[in-house]
Amino acid sequence: MKFSVIASDGNSRAGIIETERGLVLTPQFMPVGTLGTVKSVSPEELGSAGAEVMLCNTYHLYLRPGHETIRRLGGVQKFISWPGPVLTDSGGFQVYSLSRLRNITPDGVEFRSHIDGSLHFIGPEKAMEIQQALGADIIMAFDECTPYPSTYDYALNSLRLTTEWAKRCRSVHPAGSSQALFGIFQGSIYRDLRLKSLEEIVETGFDGYAAGGLSVGEPKELMYEIIHSTGPVMPAVKPRYLMGIGDLLDVLEAVEAGYDIFDCVMPTRNARNGTLFTSTGRISIKRAEFKEDPSPLDPECSCYTCRNFSRAYLRHMYLSREILSMRLNTIHNLSFYLRFFRLMRDSIIRESFAEFKRKWRYTLERNFVTLQSQTFRTS
Amino acid sequence: MKFSVIASDGNSRAGIIETERGLVLTPQFMPVGTLGTVKSVSPEELGSAGAEVMLCNTYHLYLRPGHETIRRLGGVQKFISWPGPVLTDSGGFQVYSLSRLRNITPDGVEFRSHIDGSLHFIGPEKAMEIQQALGADIIMAFDECTPYPSTYDYALNSLRLTTEWAKRCRSVHPAGSSQALFGIFQGSIYRDLRLKSLEEIVETGFDGYAAGGLSVGEPKELMYEIIHSTGPVMPAVKPRYLMGIGDLLDVLEAVEAGYDIFDCVMPTRNARNGTLFTSTGRISIKRAEFKEDPSPLDPECSCYTCRNFSRAYLRHMYLSREILSMRLNTIHNLSFYLRFFRLMRDSIIRESFAEFKRKWRYTLERNFVTLQSQTFRTS
Repeated sequence: MKFSVIASDGNSRAGIIETERGLVLTPQFMPVGTLGTVKSVSPEELGSAGAEVMLCNTYHLYLRPGHETIRRLGGVQKFISWPGPVLTDSGGFQVYSLSRLRNITPDGVEFRSHIDGSLHFIGPEKAMEIQQALGADIIMAFDECTPYPSTYDYALNSLRLTTEWAKRCRSVHPAGSSQALFGIFQGSIYRDLRLKSLEEIVETGFDGYAAGGLSVGEPKELMYEIIHSTGPVMPAVKPRYLMGIGDLLDVLEAVEAGYDIFDCVMPTRNARNGTLFTSTGRISIKRAEFKEDPSPLDPECSCYTCRNFSRAYLRHMYLSREILSMRLNTIHNLSFYLRFFRLMRDSIIRESFAEFKRKWRYTLERNFVTLQSQTFRTS
Repeated sequence: MKFSVIASDGNSRAGIIETERGLVLTPQFMPVGTLGTVKSVSPEELGSAGAEVMLCNTYHLYLRPGHETIRRLGGVQKFISWPGPVLTDSGGFQVYSLSRLRNITPDGVEFRSHIDGSLHFIGPEKAMEIQQALGADIIMAFDECTPYPSTYDYALNSLRLTTEWAKRCRSVHPAGSSQALFGIFQGSIYRDLRLKSLEEIVETGFDGYAAGGLSVGEPKELMYEIIHSTGPVMPAVKPRYLMGIGDLLDVLEAVEAGYDIFDCVMPTRNARNGTLFTSTGRISIKRAEFKEDPSPLDPECSCYTCRNFSRAYLRHMYLSREILSMRLNTIHNLSFYLRFFRLMRDSIIRESFAEFKRKWRYTLERNFVTLQSQTFRTS
């Protein structure tokens, strides 16, 4: 993996991640393909919507169909028939948020499957083994996702554990591996702990750096403070990844601070719930006003959904609980998100990001109800 | 609508139905798009699978979004974005099978919606009004679907009602309408009543003729007897439609008897339940033997599913209850069905239908468990 910054505007950067499976232009949004599918859409549609890289969840694929099965079938990209690059998370976030009876020790985490209650153990070495078997292009070091709220002492001990685990992940990552390995820093909402954690992770040395443990319940102001105090001081020559964040207002802050890549289930989960993003604001497709509305969802959008279907049909599909509803809505929301990121990137290259941010913040604040983004973390 | 028979082999015929929205080559299978979507697939995929004509259910579209809404939005084809012809059923079958508190009078049927319990009335005139508003290319006369079992006397009175209603439908169908109107004959399992009903419906005069009230619980032998005694004597110059039947063994009998068009939810409902048709037999995709099977579902199939995904992935999607599972399975089953019909048509043109039937009956009987097709009636 190679990374280069081709333009900047303040702290914002436009870059290119080169992988063996294709380029990723940054800032970039990664749709979440939890179990090996971005829910309801095909890989073909994902590409048509403009996606360049897809995220898959290590925890879910480890439980089913199993990482060894995927390795024997030629790796995750071949298994899911996605021609572009894939990033797998470390499994840490789901171990903490989904599994039962978790027990954290210095060696890793013992937990019970949320599917059948079976007992499992994932530590840094195991997380690496699983991700090596899955074979994604970018893999993540195993961390402890520090919960919110945490005391200063808890957060300090937690980041020490994360550093220790990061070193162990680093040490079992083969030199010259075709997989890029990213490190994750923690530190909760404590600015000095965040900087300390970042420093320790950078010292360990990775192909990219990620902020974990944000958007887990903390107030937006605190999240923004951490974003603005970390983004600009992260290594400039490596990709900067803000994990699990996809509220576009948050993304604007993070790109301003110099973050490059993002993932979130917000556009896809919202789509399945009938909430659609348009260039003039957010729409709840079930509203009666759309019953006989022959116009496309977003006249400025050229996705399959907007080219072929009326708001009236989308409302009918949603109210009838048809499978096609989730899919047409997902195609649109992903197309909207990915176009937003392309336009944002253009604005950085044109050195007009400040204007882009002002204009979109106005649109988003005026029309959208900003949901608590932590409810949209990947599951 | 124009219909011509271009070749025949015994009683079997290969024909062409010409509609303003495109040709329908017969024998032909119509996928069922209950509420204005063939569940889980897009109109684009339906076309790619080889579909030429789609069936929509009058009863469902009448209840939601409402026929007047669809009329104002430009008709059903525009509403659902399907470029080909559409056939709507009369609503009769669902009124009898889905609704509550139905009360049959000489004027029509009073019933309660299966959605909200609201009271409705559909008689012949209303069924025509609804279907005219929906604007399908082929519409059906309103009939009483005689239940099984019925006494001879019940079946006789029932077919008289159907004849009376057929005449009333005919009389409110405008001369020179762009919609073709098909008549339905009944008569339960009584051969003489079937022939009597057919004669009365033919006398009334329609653009095509359909056998209704079959595959409603009667033994296969009785159904086959009715099929073979009616198909050959139906008017040769009009399309012959066997309603709600799609078990391929039944289809072989019916095509042998001279029937031309068919509809059934069997391929689509089976797909959603993980039962897939292949050229070597039926597969339950959840079976453990497919866990690490890298081969396509059916090596002889060129559908999107078979071109891009392994049995192992399809099994994983099914066990994970992913939306994509239903869709990939549906694409395949429809492709299989529609190819079966194309091959069957070719065999008639080559005058080798008997051989086609023998070969496929062997394959179907050997590999497939023949399910009671009445459980697959359109819902």
